[in-house]
Order: sequence, then structure tokens, then C-alpha cells
Amino acid sequence: MGKRVSVYRKEHFNAAHRLHNPAWDDNRNSEVFGKCNLPNYHGHNYELIVKVTGETDPGTGYVMDMKVLSDVIREHVTDRFDHRNLNLDMPEFREMNPTAENIAIVIHDILRAYIDEKLDIKVILYETPRNYVEYPA
Amino acid sequence: MGKRVSVYRKEHFNAAHRLHNPAWDDNRNSEVFGKCNLPNYHGHNYELIVKVTGETDPGTGYVMDMKVLSDVIREHVTDRFDHRNLNLDMPEFREMNPTAENIAIVIHDILRAYIDEKLDIKVILYETPRNYVEYPA
Amino acid sequence: MGKRVSVYRKEHFNAAHRLHNPAWDDNRNSEVFGKCNLPNYHGHNYELIVKVTGETDPGTGYVMDMKVLSDVIREHVTDRFDHRNLNLDMPEFREMNPTAENIAIVIHDILRAYIDEKLDIKVILYETPRNYVEYPA
Amino acid sequence: MGKRVSVYRKEHFNAAHRLHNPAWDDNRNSEVFGKCNLPNYHGHNYELIVKVTGETDPGTGYVMDMKVLSDVIREHVTDRFDHRNLNLDMPEFREMNPTAENIAIVIHDILRAYIDEKLDIKVILYETPRNYVEYPA
Amino acid sequence: MGKRVSVYRKEHFNAAHRLHNPAWDDNRNSEVFGKCNLPNYHGHNYELIVKVTGETDPGTGYVMDMKVLSDVIREHVTDRFDHRNLNLDMPEFREMNPTAENIAIVIHDILRAYIDEKLDIKVILYETPRNYVEYPA
Amino acid sequence: MGKRVSVYRKEHFNAAHRLHNPAWDDNRNSEVFGKCNLPNYHGHNYELIVKVTGETDPGTGYVMDMKVLSDVIREHVTDRFDHRNLNLDMPEFREMNPTAENIAIVIHDILRAYIDEKLDIKVILYETPRNYVEYPA
Repeated sequence: MGKRVSVYRKEHFNAAHRLHNPAWDDNRNSEVFGKCNLPNYHGHNYELIVKVTGETDPGTGYVMDMKVLSDVIREHVTDRFDHRNLNLDMPEFREMNPTAENIAIVIHDILRAYIDEKLDIKVILYETPRNYVEYPA
Repeated sequence: MGKRVSVYRKEHFNAAHRLHNPAWDDNRNSEVFGKCNLPNYHGHNYELIVKVTGETDPGTGYVMDMKVLSDVIREHVTDRFDHRNLNLDMPEFREMNPTAENIAIVIHDILRAYIDEKLDIKVILYETPRNYVEYPA
Repeated sequence: MGKRVSVYRKEHFNAAHRLHNPAWDDNRNSEVFGKCNLPNYHGHNYELIVKVTGETDPGTGYVMDMKVLSDVIREHVTDRFDHRNLNLDMPEFREMNPTAENIAIVIHDILRAYIDEKLDIKVILYETPRNYVEYPA
Repeated sequence: MGKRVSVYRKEHFNAAHRLHNPAWDDNRNSEVFGKCNLPNYHGHNYELIVKVTGETDPGTGYVMDMKVLSDVIREHVTDRFDHRNLNLDMPEFREMNPTAENIAIVIHDILRAYIDEKLDIKVILYETPRNYVEYPA
Repeated sequence: MGKRVSVYRKEHFNAAHRLHNPAWDDNRNSEVFGKCNLPNYHGHNYELIVKVTGETDPGTGYVMDMKVLSDVIREHVTDRFDHRNLNLDMPEFREMNPTAENIAIVIHDILRAYIDEKLDIKVILYETPRNYVEYPA
Repeated sequence: MGKRVSVYRKEHFNAAHRLHNPAWDDNRNSEVFGKCNLPNYHGHNYELIVKVTGETDPGTGYVMDMKVLSDVIREHVTDRFDHRNLNLDMPEFREMNPTAENIAIVIHDILRAYIDEKLDIKVILYETPRNYVEYPA
């Protein structure tokens, strides 16, 4: 039986967003989110790291083929998110504020459906080189 | 008299944009700029490097005080560009397409007015870690 | 109720230090700490990452506002440590050797008092790009 | 008694390898490993991070002297792996496919013998800036 | 008429090589190239930056469409070099030693044929994060 | 005859310094240099890049053996500067303020004596990831 190892794959996408809670009025949104709430959006080069943990396969020596992992991330996440406006173009963020925390949760939940359930997954998302998040904690 | 040295200062800003030539119709814009032309904008973490070349001052040992250079960049560039939509919020890009090349030219021309004319300046702008530009060449 | 997410904020400070145990004589200090014990100090660009773990707030989508986290780190840590000599200027290191391990523990204990106790915190400190520490482990 | 802290030390080595399971025929190897199975090898700048966790020593303030850790890694790992062909030159990979997962396991098992058993160790290995692994998970 | 700007595009490939001058005997090769001459090859994650300088086009605001530049580099360089053994698989290095200098010259000469001659090009090649070259100087 | 190529080698050292012009009184030093003038020093992880330009040698394919370049930098620069206080330990900075500009000039002048005069050299010095200098310009 294989040993338990984590593998990490890094991808990226560029997107626009603004922080805005549709349940609040404009004053409260501006007060809470400051310049992140400016009406015409701003954007980021998001760096996305997906961590997959499981036992190595004795035949391949892989936990998971990183080429397959990369393809899954691209098909289901980065091709959908890249060069998009998260608030306007993505149904997931119609009602939910696209903070880094919420984007990571959404990406995790998308990927969970396409990765073997014997494998644990974690999403690390860099909004900038100085701000990043990890889900699940 | 001092020796001729270049100093570099790196700052950053996050902004939304789309590539779009207002003189062209939508079909041509879409054909030429592809997903960079998508209507709802996307965005980047822009890394901005300003290079200043001149002789060192015998008293300070500085070409230019990097604190002063940083303050000039922040006051006249990053505070104006950060968390903005370049197409909608910046008069400079009403008529001009906000490619990395054009953003670098605009930033250069802004800064030129605030830096001693004895000093040469150059602007290096990273749109992503894999795409960047330099002006003047 | 929100989901449990970790958020990370990266800050930096530049400081001088030397490794020295005041309870030992000079020979032993020199033998144990080598060039890190040289009497006139050396220094580092410290990169400081603070990890905060908790549930996202349903209103904001934040675990903690990263702007607030950044302000707390600056006010209580980097403004005090930056451009200082850790051995001479910081009372915390009068009796305690300023190894990366001990600096991380001190920073953790400072920040613990200013961050909501429902949130878990961890400090990651890069002394150089090749040496770094994490506390608590 | 000291507090529990993790310390990390980063080293590097350059090596050639190919992915190949000697128990399979060429067709199956090519099908499973694609261009990573090409017969004349390819190579990587491996970045190796070793994490050591334990209590700080009250005298030194160290979990482990990073100079000693660096020397152990160099003597037992990087001096043996650097500028080598993992498949041809390293007995560990005669029978075992040199995936990043397996290289990390081998390095962990080598280092385990040379680091005080009171200390926990973990190996993080970057095969490229976008693919990396961690063992134990 | 447009302004003169440089644009840079970064790509990467992984390859095996050894330094070896076929006109010399083994002793001299070993003496001159040391461990870089070891017979079973080693390898690198090469980072390749192509710099293109020219005037911006008034219609697009581009010196050159970076998507096109990326496609040219991939088709003519990285798809041919990636996961290959430079000495054994590439006719360019049958007679020529694959030093970073020579690889950069070869890549430059390949690309020169596919990029508009009004544009100047320069190749920057990282063999490791600490060793890199630029051609033409 | 070989082609003209530039090669770059990156090394590093950690040092303490303070900015101070011994010809000025304390008030003027404090006014001009701010927190960089604090009396007990601060420090940096300096990243030093040496660029050497010349023709490739037809036998080796090298402009200069990077191993030799690395050894020259270590022997004459980093072994002397590393873990030192530039103001107190280095005779070069008794009278001269150790700004990044002046440190780069000093390093250039040291290295110039040890590198073949047919080769051009340039020194790039990072004081922090956001401040760096280049000499000659």
C-alpha cells in the first residue's frame, strides 16, 4: 500500500470584482468595504493552488497525475473564471460577496465533484502576493 | 562629481480593464482582442517599477531619495490607479486602449513632470508575472 | 453559520540583530553562533506572515478584514521592529536571544492580545528566503 | 521548557530523470507518463524544503541550528542528487519510479536517520514552480 | 506614429543536458566542466523570456500581440525543447555545447525567422534562479 | 569568433548598516535620512547580481565560467560583507555613506580588478525586494 503524500498544483486566472453585499445599502457597503467597493470594479491576478492528499499508487508512484489535476482545474475553474467579472458573469456570486474566502469555498466545492472522494482537497488562493486564503482551514 | 547609477523602486496597484478600441465596431474588437475584450472587464495586480538614472549626490550618496520617489509614485500614480477601472475611471483611457504598453507610456508621462529633468526615467510594468513592458525602450 | 477558512497577510520589516546568549561568555557564544555572533550586528529583511483562522462572517464574507489585520500588524509589530536593532532597541530581547524562533514567539504573543480570541493565529517569519519558522508548530 | 516551533530550510539540486515503471512495457509507460517518459530524460531545478518541528532549546533559542540542518541536507541529499540522473545514478530509483512523490519519500527516509528523533520532519519538494509535493502529508 | 516600447513574454521548458565539447577528450571535458560534464546528464527548469522592441501600433496599442508572441515561442521553441535531452534530441547541439549562452543564441536565431524584422528581439534564459544569460548583449 | 552575450550570477549577503554622513551633525543626518539614520543600525538581506558581457569562447561556449565568477564574488565580496556591519567593519564605508548606490560602486570596483578586462561588468544590488540599484548605469 502506498504512503500518504500531498501534491500541489498551481494555476492562475485574471478577473475583475468588487466587494459588495447586495443585502446592504450603498452607504453601508462603502463604509465596510472601502475602495474595494468602488462601483466600476478592480481586479487581480489570482494564483490558485490546489492541494490533493492521498496514498501514492504503487504502479505510477502518483497520488494523482498532475496533468489530470491541471486539466480538471482548467476545465472547471480557470476557463470559467479567467478574464471574467466575478460579480456580473458568475452565477455563484450573484448573491454572495466575492471575497477571497468565498471564492476559495466556491472553487473547492466545484472541484470536489471531479476529484476522487478518497482524496482530500484543499484550495489556497492568492488575491495578491500579500493576501491569501486557505479552505478548508 | 558623483557617478552615474540607476535606482529602481517597485510599487503596485490593482485595477480592472478591458482592451477595446472605441473607433472599431464590436466584431473587430472581439476578433482582435479576444477574451481581453469581454464586456464586463477583468483585472490585474499591476507591479510597477520606476527606474531613475543620474549621478549620485556627494552629500547623501543618493541618486534620488527612494522614499521621495516612492511618495511621488504613490501620490501621482498608484493612489489614482489603485482599485479603479482604467477604461471608466481614468480620463487618459477614454480614447486610448489600456494595453500594458499604453499604461506604461501614460505613467511615464505623468511622472516625468514630477522628477528632476536632470534624471532619466524609465517605467517597467508587469501586467502578469509572464507579461511585462518597458518604456521608453 | 460561516465556514472555517484561514486568511494570511504578509508584511515586512528590516532590522539588525546578533545571536548572543547574555548568560554565556564570549567564547561559548562565538563557538555556538559563529558569524551570527559577530559583535557589530548584521541584519535581515524579515518577511512576516500572519495566519488567522476562523469562520467567515455571513455579512462580510470575511474571516477578518485584511485591512484591519494589516493595521494591527503595523501598529503593534512592524512600526516597532522596523529599522531597529533587536538586541539594543527592543526590551523583549534584553534577556532573550533574537533567533527567528524567538522573534516569531514574541510577535505571536504581541498580536494575540489584539486579535479576537475566537480566531486562531499563527506567525510565519522569513529571516532569509532560505530560512523561516512557524509558531505555534 | 521550550515552546514548539517549526523551522524550515530550503536547498536545491538539479537532476535529470524520466518517469518509467520498469515492470511495464514501453507502450504502457508511454501511455501513462506521456512526454515525461521520453527515453533520453529531461530535468528539473528541484527546490527542497525540510521542515523540522520541536521545542526550542532554552540556551540557544533554536529548535535546531539551521547551519547544522543545512549541512546534513547537503551531505546526505543534495551532494548525492545534484547534477545526477536519478534513474541511472541513484540505486534508490532502480526499481522505483522517480516521481516527485517518491523522491520526497526517499529524501525523508534518508534524513530521518540523521536528525534527532525527538524532532518531527517533513519534506517539501518543488519539481517546478507549479508542481510540488509534501511528505508525510 | 507609435512610441518605441519593449514587451517581454516569459515561457518555460524542462530539459536534460550535459556540458561536453565533442572535440575534446573525456579528461579535458571533465577538467573544464566538472560535475556539469557527468555522463548521465542532469537537467533544469529553464525560464525563457523573449523581449520584443518596436513602435506601438496606433490601432491596437500593441508592439506585438503577446498571445501571438506566446504562440510563436511555443510552436518553434518550447514544444521542441520541452522534456527533451538537448545533447541527444536536438540537432542544433550535436556539435555545439549546450551552455546557457549557446542555448540562448540558438533560440534567438530560431525566433528571428518568425518575428517581423522591424522588431528587435532579445532572449533572456534562466538556467537556474541564480544563473542566467542574455543575447544579444 | 564568438558572439557577444551577457551572463548574470546572483549571490547574497546579510549585513547591518545605517545611513549617516560623518561630515554632517546629528540633526541634519536625522532630517535627511529619517529612520535609516537610527543610531543602532538596521539590516538587509542584500541580493547581489553581477552581469558580465563579452564574447563566447569557441571551446567552452562560455562568456565566463559561472563557477569561477561565483568563486570570485564570494572570495572578494560576499565573504567580506556577509554578517558584517558595513559602517563599522568595512574600511570602504568609514568616510562614505553605505547607500545602495555606494555599496554597488564599491563592489563593482572590487570585482573590476579580478575579472578579465576584455569583459564588461555591471553590478545590480537589491537592498530590499522593492529597492534596487545598478552600476554603471
